[in-house]
Amino acid sequence: MRWSELYVPTLRQDPAGADAVSHRLLLRAGYIRQLMAGHYSLLPLAVRVRAKIIEVIREEMSRIGAQEFLLPTMQPAEVWQKSGRWDKIGAEMFRLTDRKGADVALGMTHEEIFATVAQELRSYRDLPQLWYQFQTKFRDEPRPKSGLIRVREFTMKDSYSFDTDEAGLDRSFDKHHDAYVRIFARLGIPAIAVEASSGIMGGSDSVEFMCPTSAGEDLVVHCACGYAANVEKATSHLAPATDGAGLDAPEPFDTPDARTIEDLVRDYGVTADRQIKTLVYVVDGQLTLVLMRGDHALVEQKLIDTLAAVAIRPAHPDEISEALGALPGSLGGVGVTELPILADLALRDRRDMTTGANRDGVHLRGVDVARDLAVGRWADLREVTAGEPCPRCEQPLEVLRTVEIGHIFKLGRRYTETLGVSVLGADGERVTPIMGSYGIGVERALAAIVETHHDDRGIVWPVAVAPFEVAIAVLGTSDEVVAEAQTLYAALRAQRVDVLLDDRAERPGVKFSDIELVGIPYRITVAARGLAEGTVEFTDRATGQTEKIPLARAVAHTTHTLRATEN
Amino acid sequence: MRWSELYVPTLRQDPAGADAVSHRLLLRAGYIRQLMAGHYSLLPLAVRVRAKIIEVIREEMSRIGAQEFLLPTMQPAEVWQKSGRWDKIGAEMFRLTDRKGADVALGMTHEEIFATVAQELRSYRDLPQLWYQFQTKFRDEPRPKSGLIRVREFTMKDSYSFDTDEAGLDRSFDKHHDAYVRIFARLGIPAIAVEASSGIMGGSDSVEFMCPTSAGEDLVVHCACGYAANVEKATSHLAPATDGAGLDAPEPFDTPDARTIEDLVRDYGVTADRQIKTLVYVVDGQLTLVLMRGDHALVEQKLIDTLAAVAIRPAHPDEISEALGALPGSLGGVGVTELPILADLALRDRRDMTTGANRDGVHLRGVDVARDLAVGRWADLREVTAGEPCPRCEQPLEVLRTVEIGHIFKLGRRYTETLGVSVLGADGERVTPIMGSYGIGVERALAAIVETHHDDRGIVWPVAVAPFEVAIAVLGTSDEVVAEAQTLYAALRAQRVDVLLDDRAERPGVKFSDIELVGIPYRITVAARGLAEGTVEFTDRATGQTEKIPLARAVAHTTHTLRATEN
Repeated sequence: MRWSELYVPTLRQDPAGADAVSHRLLLRAGYIRQLMAGHYSLLPLAVRVRAKIIEVIREEMSRIGAQEFLLPTMQPAEVWQKSGRWDKIGAEMFRLTDRKGADVALGMTHEEIFATVAQELRSYRDLPQLWYQFQTKFRDEPRPKSGLIRVREFTMKDSYSFDTDEAGLDRSFDKHHDAYVRIFARLGIPAIAVEASSGIMGGSDSVEFMCPTSAGEDLVVHCACGYAANVEKATSHLAPATDGAGLDAPEPFDTPDARTIEDLVRDYGVTADRQIKTLVYVVDGQLTLVLMRGDHALVEQKLIDTLAAVAIRPAHPDEISEALGALPGSLGGVGVTELPILADLALRDRRDMTTGANRDGVHLRGVDVARDLAVGRWADLREVTAGEPCPRCEQPLEVLRTVEIGHIFKLGRRYTETLGVSVLGADGERVTPIMGSYGIGVERALAAIVETHHDDRGIVWPVAVAPFEVAIAVLGTSDEVVAEAQTLYAALRAQRVDVLLDDRAERPGVKFSDIELVGIPYRITVAARGLAEGTVEFTDRATGQTEKIPLARAVAHTTHTLRATEN
Repeated sequence: MRWSELYVPTLRQDPAGADAVSHRLLLRAGYIRQLMAGHYSLLPLAVRVRAKIIEVIREEMSRIGAQEFLLPTMQPAEVWQKSGRWDKIGAEMFRLTDRKGADVALGMTHEEIFATVAQELRSYRDLPQLWYQFQTKFRDEPRPKSGLIRVREFTMKDSYSFDTDEAGLDRSFDKHHDAYVRIFARLGIPAIAVEASSGIMGGSDSVEFMCPTSAGEDLVVHCACGYAANVEKATSHLAPATDGAGLDAPEPFDTPDARTIEDLVRDYGVTADRQIKTLVYVVDGQLTLVLMRGDHALVEQKLIDTLAAVAIRPAHPDEISEALGALPGSLGGVGVTELPILADLALRDRRDMTTGANRDGVHLRGVDVARDLAVGRWADLREVTAGEPCPRCEQPLEVLRTVEIGHIFKLGRRYTETLGVSVLGADGERVTPIMGSYGIGVERALAAIVETHHDDRGIVWPVAVAPFEVAIAVLGTSDEVVAEAQTLYAALRAQRVDVLLDDRAERPGVKFSDIELVGIPYRITVAARGLAEGTVEFTDRATGQTEKIPLARAVAHTTHTLRATEN
């Protein structure tokens, strides 16, 4: 393609309000424009990259035997009501009413709809099935941000597996896991596979593929030994506590101005790891006490997962005061028997602890957890922080900012059961297939590549997804330069090289900086001075290295270099 | 691909409720399933055909220098309000409110949104631009029907041109016209290009590409000489009337039981072509008389186009009675001066005509149109019927049932003006670019191919869009048959033939009928009997002809045959 015929509105200045690197560079290099918050127009360069990403994913889906479908974006409420998610999912799902008054949803995921198609499966011999599509998803994000990273409308590759039994699901899941590892490697994304919470999807196992980037909002706990987990699921090794015997019974003491963990540390000398923090949540309508060690933070997702809760929220002060007789700052679980008490494992068997007395301005010391607290359930609820020992190897853990670029789930039979999918088993009995679901956000993957492939001059695309593999910079307008550049352009195209001829009437500096900003992996510079000695320049965008090569060898050198990047 | 790994749920019986041939065959051959009225799931075979159609369109768009974009489906109300279409378009546009209470629309077309992107164009040197996308469109059709032909959600290739002046628009329009002719030829669709009304899009010229099919709902007037027009726009040559002198003034006569044109013919001997039919419409709120010859039908779209009306409807009887003093059956324009009168050209200079007297049960005869009627505007308003003389060659016209598969519009400056698109002209003045818009419905094109390529055994795909070019029917399970079929399969794939290996454990009859139903253009049958003499059978789906060919020549014969279908 000729640059003079390509619409690439590069900007001289950094755009205002673009925080993430990928957002800033994609705007500046003329890849995207915002229509409204969370909705972007993809311009020609972005369409080319997106198509290459899709083709990589398609090849890997095909390699594991998955078949491509295309299911509707607009979906009847009834299907979502059957699965129970019409009510369970809140404002994140776009809903509307059609001219006949029927409720419909815009698909934010397609478990229900693929299960509907699967109703036609007849026999265990029809299984396994791996089905996928590339389809627009809509999610009414409360805070769209960071360009293509958090949007309301995006293309997703979503796949769904149907197997007769758990062993089959494990195989389908593993196939997808391997395919995702290959996809992200081919896309040049340094993905970390982590254990994750299944959230609204339900189901047992799930693995997230996370790309480390400062623009990310998900925290991943990571160890050099290979341990990796979303902070919503991560744990760490805690040394066993060595508490003294403590008191025979909890002893109240006045703490008139102490409202926080820190107040007790500063004014009363009680270290945070010897305090019990008492949180009050409303879990699916039930007031619940959640006990944490004073220096530990609760991960709400762990609370949701532990209790299989649909909706949780912190209790309001008046709800707390009515139930416990005190306000936050002096709360505790000692003597509480009418409310369920959930406690973090780090509190197990601790003695000589301090907690609120459920009287404003009073705390209790000498608390023995086993003796004094009616804990109904123990669970891992705390947030791991950097430097804690790895649960596998006990080396210090890292906590990384990441963005999720893929997520694979073992779903179980929730959707097939509620939507009436069953096949005849080998023994003649009806069998409800077990499902898995697997997703990659295409435009987010594009942004993640930019997040991890750029320098101060612009984007540095991996060859596999670059909008063009090579740019020919034509310097000057002499007949010889133009003719040789065109000949080279035609010769590269004949070798199926994806080449862009920069034939614009611009100064060399503008051409060089645009080619760098846009991120074409290789640049061939055709100029009168070089041609006089029979050479062109070949520049590697990633390293910035330039070498003179004989014009006669330019095609061979290019194809050889490109081939070396494939694997 | 192996059929055993392909999901093709063919049906033994014709599905109930599928009227159109394409609907019936696409369901039966396992290409599509309905999710809800107007929304279809595309199964793997349909996804393959759709991808090939898209690639044909993309190649032809690229050939005319168009660049691919991808713009959001969800769009802010403000943009549609600026163009005036937020209010102008009714229930056909899906609208919803997001979690922040903002009004948004689902794109039914993208003039506004591409114009928004075009706001960044700077100079006349940036023009022309031809921009296109493949994007899902949503339209809340009052009556979705005929499978993929009339749906509420579909993929459209829509393109938009931006030029500095009318001559540029003419060039962009002609390029699209030529591209569309090539696209439909390559897809095997016998498209007829017809003059059409621009409808809600506004603008001057528009051409529709229509595919003749009994499933169509659009009538096209067509002549062997090449004249073709949508019935909404078509005209015909009418012989000049030879009226007598008539009376000196209109003369009332009693017609107590005559309420229709036919009543007057039968009971009073007034032929229909000597009657004036008086219709009363409310045109953008204004009561308007529309006069037609008694034997002619009004085309409402012509009325809309003539008056550039936004909304028209027939007046209610009480509105008519209040304005004219009579009810339908005895209406006429003689003496009417307070309402605008629009008359069809076929009434021009007619004399000795009969019409209602605006008194119930009374008509007037001897009406001289020029003398007795205050016609404010003359226009072509009548519907052409089969057999009337062609306006170009005067041979009898045909009227065909068709479905629209493409539509190209010269839009003018309506969208660029209202959305503030302007560039610096060559003379330093601001210029508002002029737009064109061009669309092809992808899944409707798929259905149109089936409508025009089938027989009583199933679909007969043109090679260019077939889900597979060749199917190998493996008959029996002997090692030799299986081994030779696999070798042939691998050899064809190595030649880049898109081949399906029917390796299912099914009887030959099932394989043959499924391959025919699905519509694979060529079948190679590998069976023990043939192999014994070193041959396989090669069957042409379209002609049904089978020839024995030496196994050793099977690959060459196939590639040669396929190459012969390309052009």
